[in-house]
Amino acid sequence: MSFDRLQEKIDTMKNPTVVGLDPDLENIPPMILERHLGEKGETLQAAADGVLEFNMGLIDALWDIVPAVKPQAAFYEILGPEGVAALKKTCEYAKSKGMYVICDAKRNDIGTTAVAYSAAYLGTVKIGETLLRPFDVDALTVNAYLGSDGIIPFIEEAVKNDKAVFTLVKTSNPSSGELQDTFIGQERLYTVVAELMEKISADTIGNYGFSRVGAVVGATYPQEMEFLRSRLKNTFFLVPGYGAQGGSVADVAHAFTEKKQGAIVNSSRGVIAAWKNTGNNGQDYPAAAREAAIKMKADLASILD
Amino acid sequence: MSFDRLQEKIDTMKNPTVVGLDPDLENIPPMILERHLGEKGETLQAAADGVLEFNMGLIDALWDIVPAVKPQAAFYEILGPEGVAALKKTCEYAKSKGMYVICDAKRNDIGTTAVAYSAAYLGTVKIGETLLRPFDVDALTVNAYLGSDGIIPFIEEAVKNDKAVFTLVKTSNPSSGELQDTFIGQERLYTVVAELMEKISADTIGNYGFSRVGAVVGATYPQEMEFLRSRLKNTFFLVPGYGAQGGSVADVAHAFTEKKQGAIVNSSRGVIAAWKNTGNNGQDYPAAAREAAIKMKADLASILD
Repeated sequence: MSFDRLQEKIDTMKNPTVVGLDPDLENIPPMILERHLGEKGETLQAAADGVLEFNMGLIDALWDIVPAVKPQAAFYEILGPEGVAALKKTCEYAKSKGMYVICDAKRNDIGTTAVAYSAAYLGTVKIGETLLRPFDVDALTVNAYLGSDGIIPFIEEAVKNDKAVFTLVKTSNPSSGELQDTFIGQERLYTVVAELMEKISADTIGNYGFSRVGAVVGATYPQEMEFLRSRLKNTFFLVPGYGAQGGSVADVAHAFTEKKQGAIVNSSRGVIAAWKNTGNNGQDYPAAAREAAIKMKADLASILD
Repeated sequence: MSFDRLQEKIDTMKNPTVVGLDPDLENIPPMILERHLGEKGETLQAAADGVLEFNMGLIDALWDIVPAVKPQAAFYEILGPEGVAALKKTCEYAKSKGMYVICDAKRNDIGTTAVAYSAAYLGTVKIGETLLRPFDVDALTVNAYLGSDGIIPFIEEAVKNDKAVFTLVKTSNPSSGELQDTFIGQERLYTVVAELMEKISADTIGNYGFSRVGAVVGATYPQEMEFLRSRLKNTFFLVPGYGAQGGSVADVAHAFTEKKQGAIVNSSRGVIAAWKNTGNNGQDYPAAAREAAIKMKADLASILD
């Protein structure tokens, strides 16, 4: 099962880290962009080619020590269809290296539209008599504001193709509480969302005890994370907010189960833009990323002990 | 201002309709797809070319009587980057014909990621010294589960580029109430969302009295719509759920202000797949769409009287 494979990779590598591939152009060494722009002009295609080269260098530097990558769709869509092509190639390349790929796109819709999104990222589309896989990632982030109608098509597609989703539950941003923390009777909205997700995914539990619907739970709210872990026995946590956003090792420790499983912690800039701290103008960006990833693994090691 | 332009077009055409360009392959006349697949093989590119041809035929048939189109991103993403290129070309073509383009992508994220999404759809990206507009639509649908952090970047980009957004408030699907109808104190969640949106957009109000943050309010919940209209004086409504999903003319009438303004009603399949009812296998799909759009305009005319 999809999360079984992710947990096995985490256990084997002793590293519950996912690297966020958020290639904001600011995060890419200038030499890479300058070369592509010099060759092709100041076009979306040139920038997208720079993004892909950057990502492939990162993946080459990380695949044997980091179990998963999480490309953030926005940073590809900002380069138009050319950027979306770089997203697809990034996902393909990461999978070819054995990495688990979580597409962070926070998709949400209903009915045939939700079916189309789920087919795009987790399934197949039939063109004539040919079945094609448009993006074919391992997991997709989704947003549950539309209710179970908006999530069930993704679960169905995940079951068919051995994939998974992560639903936004308690996000890491300062204003996440405005809606998510409001009380509905005795429960906060994020708890209501989380328990709805456990309910509709209850028959999809794999060998490690996790259903195909994980939860996004921010490291910046450790008490809420501890509470959610106590309530959600069958939910795999995707944890943003570690490092740059302020979440500490002690904070993210709450995301793990008693068996020290069921969570993966994201770092984006801390790894992919580590080259900014070495004073080499990005020439050493793969080595800098690898070093940052090794340091993060060491920092998180105490959780797994 | 963006919604001023939309309202002017609606007033001029006496037609508060937006046609949903949801080119599920099932909705495209077989002759179009067969020709592209015959020429290029059973590929995403061939299907995307079919989608674009279909959409251009629809736009040619509708631009002088329908003020706006609403491409649904999922039906393009399902064809991969090639489909996303067809989305961009569809938006460009509709704008070249003077139509107001609402990209229905329900995007949502925080911080620099929300900035990237807003730049992608409503703004510009700087490649070297060149400013490019990746998608450049008039308005984008967004999802507010992350709180004001997740919406403010879109508002800022909308102000800079004279664009707008529509936030999901009360959606048209059967399970929309699971979360949206829950009580937070004396108010339902959808009301809390709606009033938060009015608050953060209060300084963006245009000549017709609408802010740059509209609301998606489904025609399938007419009482909730009537309530929301009574509370939201400065909010433009995007109304799905008319026709196929069950919303009637009497239902959607609640979306309009006392001046009979501030709302646009979506029809997707009812217009774009009208060819399925004429018995000509899609040969007459533009004429069938135009006829359906004229009928919808006539049906809605009583609201504007």
